[in-house]
Amino acid sequence: MKPRMSYGCGLEAALAVVGGKWKPVVLWRLAEGPRRFGELRRLVTGISEKMLIQQLREMEADGIVDRRDFHEIPPRVEYSLTEFGVSLSVALKPLCDWGRDHMERIAAARTNSVESN
Amino acid sequence: MKPRMSYGCGLEAALAVVGGKWKPVVLWRLAEGPRRFGELRRLVTGISEKMLIQQLREMEADGIVDRRDFHEIPPRVEYSLTEFGVSLSVALKPLCDWGRDHMERIAAARTNSVESN
Repeated sequence: MKPRMSYGCGLEAALAVVGGKWKPVVLWRLAEGPRRFGELRRLVTGISEKMLIQQLREMEADGIVDRRDFHEIPPRVEYSLTEFGVSLSVALKPLCDWGRDHMERIAAARTNSVESN
Repeated sequence: MKPRMSYGCGLEAALAVVGGKWKPVVLWRLAEGPRRFGELRRLVTGISEKMLIQQLREMEADGIVDRRDFHEIPPRVEYSLTEFGVSLSVALKPLCDWGRDHMERIAAARTNSVESN
């Protein structure tokens, strides 16, 4: 996303960091604990390798993800949340809970709108 | 977004409803109170008329936005959050607060990453 140096409200600033299709889910998976690249790719259903690399780099640049290379052979690289990233995952929690509590209703509304199209 | 009938976690379900570039900001503006179409378009900086119409229709289909046509001339149509939409805006609040609290840091990280590109 194109950087903006000012934001109309806090939500826009937060979405600059964690908006889009993939980042919230990547963040959420990292909130469960540090993950190797391959693990993360399996956990974030449907993401391509290239896209996951890009998302992680942007999240690193924003200071929410830490990348640790163990300099081992075979390569071992682990991703985890920084303290700043943890604070963001805490702020995302109510949204997760809302989605979990209303999952059936959401799926039903979407089934109906497919039928009426 | 293509409908999915099951979600890996609550966050994915929530993002099916309020994911993407515009919906969180539209929702947030409606959380402040009912808005006419023109007001909403001014408040959501950068959105096109066509895009705003589409976003509002999808939010209506998901049951989070209510559209009220007053059948007046000139036309008066007001959008507001349903009870379900209000519950979603409550769940988004901590993310807004996080963005507001860290706005300067977010903008600074983004300025740096532009310079290093």
